[in-house]
Amino acid sequence: MPHVVLQYTANLEPLVDMSAFCKEIAKMLVAQRDDDGKPLFPTGGTRVLAYPAQHYEVADTNDDYGFCYINVRIAHGRSDAAKKATGDALLKLAQARFADAFRQAHVGVTIQIDESPGQVYDAKHSNLHPLFNK
Amino acid sequence: MPHVVLQYTANLEPLVDMSAFCKEIAKMLVAQRDDDGKPLFPTGGTRVLAYPAQHYEVADTNDDYGFCYINVRIAHGRSDAAKKATGDALLKLAQARFADAFRQAHVGVTIQIDESPGQVYDAKHSNLHPLFNK
Amino acid sequence: MPHVVLQYTANLEPLVDMSAFCKEIAKMLVAQRDDDGKPLFPTGGTRVLAYPAQHYEVADTNDDYGFCYINVRIAHGRSDAAKKATGDALLKLAQARFADAFRQAHVGVTIQIDESPGQVYDAKHSNLHPLFNK
Repeated sequence: MPHVVLQYTANLEPLVDMSAFCKEIAKMLVAQRDDDGKPLFPTGGTRVLAYPAQHYEVADTNDDYGFCYINVRIAHGRSDAAKKATGDALLKLAQARFADAFRQAHVGVTIQIDESPGQVYDAKHSNLHPLFNK
Repeated sequence: MPHVVLQYTANLEPLVDMSAFCKEIAKMLVAQRDDDGKPLFPTGGTRVLAYPAQHYEVADTNDDYGFCYINVRIAHGRSDAAKKATGDALLKLAQARFADAFRQAHVGVTIQIDESPGQVYDAKHSNLHPLFNK
Repeated sequence: MPHVVLQYTANLEPLVDMSAFCKEIAKMLVAQRDDDGKPLFPTGGTRVLAYPAQHYEVADTNDDYGFCYINVRIAHGRSDAAKKATGDALLKLAQARFADAFRQAHVGVTIQIDESPGQVYDAKHSNLHPLFNK
């Protein structure tokens, strides 16, 4: 964790550089700090995955609107302030990255952070974490 | 919101017109009314995204079964009756849209509505909502 | 249910046979038994869907790391022991299936089971279940 998934209408593909956006989000998450100045999230558990949908429909379906939904799943244990700061930083990145798209099209972006909803099992198998836990 | 995601086995692609299904779902959601006759959901926040999976496996894996999972994420604040009516309307659409597929193949369809599970942050950046809030 | 979704970086595609992995997971789930020796999950409700992401970024973004997130959504009603056994069996499958990938690349795998988070509506339309309820 954090686990970030972008689900969006495929008509945004030519309007937004989603690979660059994924990179910005990952870098922002890795740079977040808690009140003690320690990393808020484990670097080796940070991932961002973006999925355009070929079949989609938005709003009243009368135009080829765009939509991007950004969901961040995190584990329990962060302060409310840290969660808000993370969400706000993500919103700022989205506003910048989608600025051109907003000028050219009708687009909605929604960002939500979920804290381990309904989770009853959690396991990790990784040779990524050791790279960053030195 | 509402945020609708269809996740399905790619073998349904030739059997079900998923673009048409997305459109039906969006139109149905936008047409839902609460007890006061007002729109149950914001038009500009309504989106439906459909994702075929190239890699999949269903049931006992002994045949090329089909499956479509439909998840609707909504915000808090609707009545139980309104939520049930929305789910039932979606089920009815699915039954009609998948009728041919059910005649030709073994298919499962599951519909679930989730109310903001575990949500700790929510933000919106949109030039879609103003189109419909007049 | 159970509803299994794999979301992973597309760079794992040549390293892991995801279709075979889906099949292993489905077979494992169908084989799980509760304390009475009865099937833990309904065969006709078992499905596994795998989605590579073309756009992605992992960890510090300084290398082409891989990541696979496995989410299992189940309905309420299983014992803690049964849920842990299912998660552990899935972890074991992942460790075997990703062994080669771990030798060749830096990869993270996370497995989480969620129990109907926030669910307010549930419906099923299926001609799959009757095949297995004899």
